[in-house]
Order: sequence, then C-alpha cells, then structure tokens
Amino acid sequence: MTAKPSPEKLLALGMSFWNAKTLLSAVELGVFDALADSPADLATLTAKLGLHERSARDFFDALVAMKVLDRDANGRYANSPETEFFLVRTRPSYVGGLFEMANARLYSSWGNLTEALRTGRRQSENQEASDLFAALYADPKRLRGFLAAMSGVSAGAAQAIADKFPWRDYKTFVDVGAAQGMVPVTIAREHTHLTGVGFDLPQVGPIFEDFVAANELADRVRFHPGDFFKDELPKTDVIIMGHILHDWDLGQKRMLLRKAHDALSEGGALIVYEAMIDNDRRENAFGLLMSLNMLIETDGGFDFTGSDCEGWMKDAGFSSTRVEPLNGPNSMAVAFK
Amino acid sequence: MTAKPSPEKLLALGMSFWNAKTLLSAVELGVFDALADSPADLATLTAKLGLHERSARDFFDALVAMKVLDRDANGRYANSPETEFFLVRTRPSYVGGLFEMANARLYSSWGNLTEALRTGRRQSENQEASDLFAALYADPKRLRGFLAAMSGVSAGAAQAIADKFPWRDYKTFVDVGAAQGMVPVTIAREHTHLTGVGFDLPQVGPIFEDFVAANELADRVRFHPGDFFKDELPKTDVIIMGHILHDWDLGQKRMLLRKAHDALSEGGALIVYEAMIDNDRRENAFGLLMSLNMLIETDGGFDFTGSDCEGWMKDAGFSSTRVEPLNGPNSMAVAFK
Repeated sequence: MTAKPSPEKLLALGMSFWNAKTLLSAVELGVFDALADSPADLATLTAKLGLHERSARDFFDALVAMKVLDRDANGRYANSPETEFFLVRTRPSYVGGLFEMANARLYSSWGNLTEALRTGRRQSENQEASDLFAALYADPKRLRGFLAAMSGVSAGAAQAIADKFPWRDYKTFVDVGAAQGMVPVTIAREHTHLTGVGFDLPQVGPIFEDFVAANELADRVRFHPGDFFKDELPKTDVIIMGHILHDWDLGQKRMLLRKAHDALSEGGALIVYEAMIDNDRRENAFGLLMSLNMLIETDGGFDFTGSDCEGWMKDAGFSSTRVEPLNGPNSMAVAFK
Repeated sequence: MTAKPSPEKLLALGMSFWNAKTLLSAVELGVFDALADSPADLATLTAKLGLHERSARDFFDALVAMKVLDRDANGRYANSPETEFFLVRTRPSYVGGLFEMANARLYSSWGNLTEALRTGRRQSENQEASDLFAALYADPKRLRGFLAAMSGVSAGAAQAIADKFPWRDYKTFVDVGAAQGMVPVTIAREHTHLTGVGFDLPQVGPIFEDFVAANELADRVRFHPGDFFKDELPKTDVIIMGHILHDWDLGQKRMLLRKAHDALSEGGALIVYEAMIDNDRRENAFGLLMSLNMLIETDGGFDFTGSDCEGWMKDAGFSSTRVEPLNGPNSMAVAFK
C-alpha cells in the first residue's frame, strides 16, 4: 500500500486557496484586532465581529488548526504570538496591509490567471487604465492601503538590508519608490550617521512624512517628490530600489538602472531587492509566482533572477556586482559604480 | 535577530492562493495532459497549450518550484511522478476533477467567504436555487464533471475502506450517494465475494454504469435509482455514506442515519466517512475548511467530529460505534446494528 503514490499533497496544494482566503477574511473581519491583548470565548468573539452563528465556530477552529489562533482549555480564543505581532492593525509591526490588498483585489484578479496566460494581458480591475499606478495613486484611500501593504512586504527585507550592507562606508542614501518609508526608516534607525531620502510621487509625501515623524526620524529622513519616468534621481551615495524593477518591462528596467548609475557618486552603490528568482529558476516558487502576479497586475512587469539583474547592472555601467540573500524569498543585488 | 518573530509563514499562508490557482490553471490548460509520457521544451509546450510567451516560462518554472513538474538539464519539462499518475485526464487514477470543479466554481465562490460568515448563507452561483443538487443534476455536463470530481476525492478513502473494514463478515453493501461508483468498484474489486449497489438519483445511472463496466464489475455491482429524501434505502448488510452527511443540516443528517438503520440487516454496519474533524477541533484544518466549503456551497451543511457522528448514530438506534482514520484527512465512523 505505502508504495502507491498518494494524492494528498496535490490535493492540499490545489485547495490551499481555502486556507489563504480564510486568513484573508480573518484580517478583513478584524479577528486579530478583536483578540489583541484579550482572549475571548466563542459567543463573545462571534458577537464582537458580527458573524452569523452558523459557521463562526468552524471559522475560528479552522484558524486554530492553521496555527494562527490559539484556543485554551476553557474554549477562549487568543492570537498566536505571530498574529499578535504581525496582524493587529494598530501595531507598528502590522503586515496585514498586504493581505488587505490581496483580499480586496488580487484574490479575484487571480481568478483570471488562465486568461492572462493565454493573452499575456493583465487582469486587474483597471484593465482600461493605461497606467496601473496612476489609477492607484489617484485615489488617496487606496493609495494609503497600497503603501501600508508595501510596508508589510518590506519590513523584513528592510531589516536585513540594514544589517547586511556596509553602511559605515557611506553617508547618504535614496530609496526610490519609497512608499510609506519602511526601508529608509529602518536603515536610518540602525545607522545614526546616515541621512536618507524617500523618492516617490508627490501624492506619497504626506503619508511618508507621517510615518517618518511617527518614528522620530524627521531630522535625518526627508521626502523628495518626483516621477522616475520623467525626472532624474537625486544625487547620493547609495540608491535602493525594492520591488520596483519587477513592475516594469525590460526597457523600463534598463532605463531605471541607468538613472541610478547617473545619480550615484563615484564608488556609490545600487541595491536592488526583490523576491528574486534563483538563477536555476527551480527553487523560489514565491518569486516565480510574484512574476505571475506582475502578469496579473501590470502591462509588462516581470520578476527576474539575480544573474539577470547583475547583467543589466553591468550593461548600465556598474563595475562590480554581487547577490546576497535577505529574509525569506528576498535577495538583494548590489552594484558598485 | 533570530529571536524576532518572522512573518514568512503568515505571508506564505495568506498568499497561498497564488500556488493553488497556478495548479488549478495548469489542470484547466491541460499542462499535465500535454506532458503525458513525453517531455517537451519551452517553445513546444507553450505552442501546444496556446499560451502567450510573456509569462509561459514563469508559469512552467513556478510549477517546477512547486514540485508538480520536473525540468531536465536540457530545459525539457516533464510531469512529476505524482502529476503523471493523478493529473493526466485519461488515466483511471485522475483526481483532477476536483480541481476542475474548484477552478470553475469554488475559487470564485470562496471570494465571498466574508459575506458568507456574516450572513450564514451560501455563496455558490445558484444562490436562488432552492436545491443545489437539483440544479447540479439538471445539467448533464456539469453532473458528469461533479461526479468525476467526487471520484477524485474518494479514491484514496475507497481503498482504505476496502482494506480496513472486516468485509469477510458480510455479503452485500449499498453505497448511498454513489456518484460515479469509485467506492463500490474499489470494494468489489478487492473482495470478490461481495455484491454491491450504488444508490443515487436516476440521472447518475448511465454514468455509474459506464464506470462499473469500464472496471468489468457489472456482474457484481449494479445501480439502484432513488432519492434518499423520498425513498427508503435498499436492504443490505453494509451501508456506506461518504461525503454525504456533511452536505445537509442536522435534522437531515439524523433522518439519513435513521433510514440507514432501517435498511440494515441485524448485525449490519453503517460506514460514514468524511474529512472528519478531530474531536478536539484543533488539528484537521482540511476538515474544518471543508465545513466552511459547505457554508459556501449548501444551505445548511456542515462537517463534524467523529464523536458528533457517533452520538447521532447511537441516537438513531445503533448499538456500538467506533472511529478509524483512513487516508489523509479522512476518517470513518462505523456503527453496528
């Protein structure tokens, strides 16, 4: 019997949208917020969240079985250590913005993956809009949600970049596509000799400045409004581009790398970080799926390997490059001018 | 650094709909059929499936990273042993019917999970239909797809039931809600002294009989048309109900258990198998999520623990009961008259 192949792993993989959507709905409904610092029994939690009694218990117990809630011997539900830290909305460590975006937009857009693969065309809700980001940035509420989501995605990588890059050799940096400012805030907090700039579209300014002020770094981290398709990048020692290049097609990627090269001082460095695909394209499933997400979400974007990125960096004029792993599926390609 | 909590597991869980939908689209597009018995390079496979070149390579390499395809040193893609066995449509071991159903219907219905949890109402596409199964069974093409999906779900459990139940003590059995007939065929093939009956709605008859004939068991396995809400069950030694009780509300569940008790000979046995929830409701995530799937798909259905089921069986008049694990998330509750 045991020699027969078993379909269990395949079935779990193909049905894992159940697990994913259950977690996304839990974030949407505020399950982890309701349990912040205070366990609650079934009736209390059901009432607090406004759930129908038919399936509330199954929902909470599914979250227990998925290890994102705990349940004590008295039947009281509590956040797990991870969800208490990462999925309570009021905490600075909140990463649920990504899930809010996934729940509100990506889950349904991904329903059209087959069509996207057949046509090569994006399937996100702004099919008609010529520029996804223009549409996103035109709506202040959606923009704030998107930027918070990006902070969630970037927090771990930001810490790893702060730890692994030789910051003592440099004085200034610019984070291109800075969003809320998770990366510049994390780096400036760890390295007090640095001053940093967040570069992004003007609409991002107030959101960035709120975040920097909340982290008490307004004296060393400031916002520089600009459009990297129209404007040059500010002169600096180190440029960071995180989850930026993957949004764009190859010509646009090369243009951005050239602008980074132009803006850097002699001996300066460019850090590109992404869920970079392993060079053999057979290990980093998340990076490859992120590239399919760029199919779903953008006109020409795609993710790439470290080796791809190093090649483009050299073509843009950089003299030496290297790739280093960061946290989880993320790596950084570093290029020196 | 390492003592800090990491969001990687949460992010992987919340975004796992990417992995799921990629596999579901691969089944829909016929990736595994195209590679049956014959590896193919990127260009050949892309052309064969009619994919756009933008993301074909990322798609196939994502399937490699998800371990459902292999890729050799010459860049030729091949099915993994599991996908060659379980996801090639022409093989008797095909379980992809479940994924076809998930892809065509469940993925999008689950997009409304939050609404379902708030209202307690199902979200499948036949919101208006008073009877999900009536609608399903009224459309021959959808019916055949649904029944094939059920075979995929049942194959492993059918084998485990054939192996674990003391069939030598009995001569006849009836599988209630037999669908295509995977369970009766598997049991009759392993135990040549048995004769079996598949009980289901009349529309299922031709599909059941095709499947039994293809397995050369028409002499010992026959179809008995009926509606378990209107009709009594056929008299027999052993009754099997697999993934039936969870479709219905508690009153309907109890009615079905009573009808099973009535139909059994003295000393006869009832086997109920499901992705049964563990008694402590904290381990079998798949069973708990299956119960949420019943919220999405049915008016009053829900999954249950082995202990719940044993209680209802005793209430229906059975004298002794036990629960045994089958394959994967499945268990059977056995009751003796």
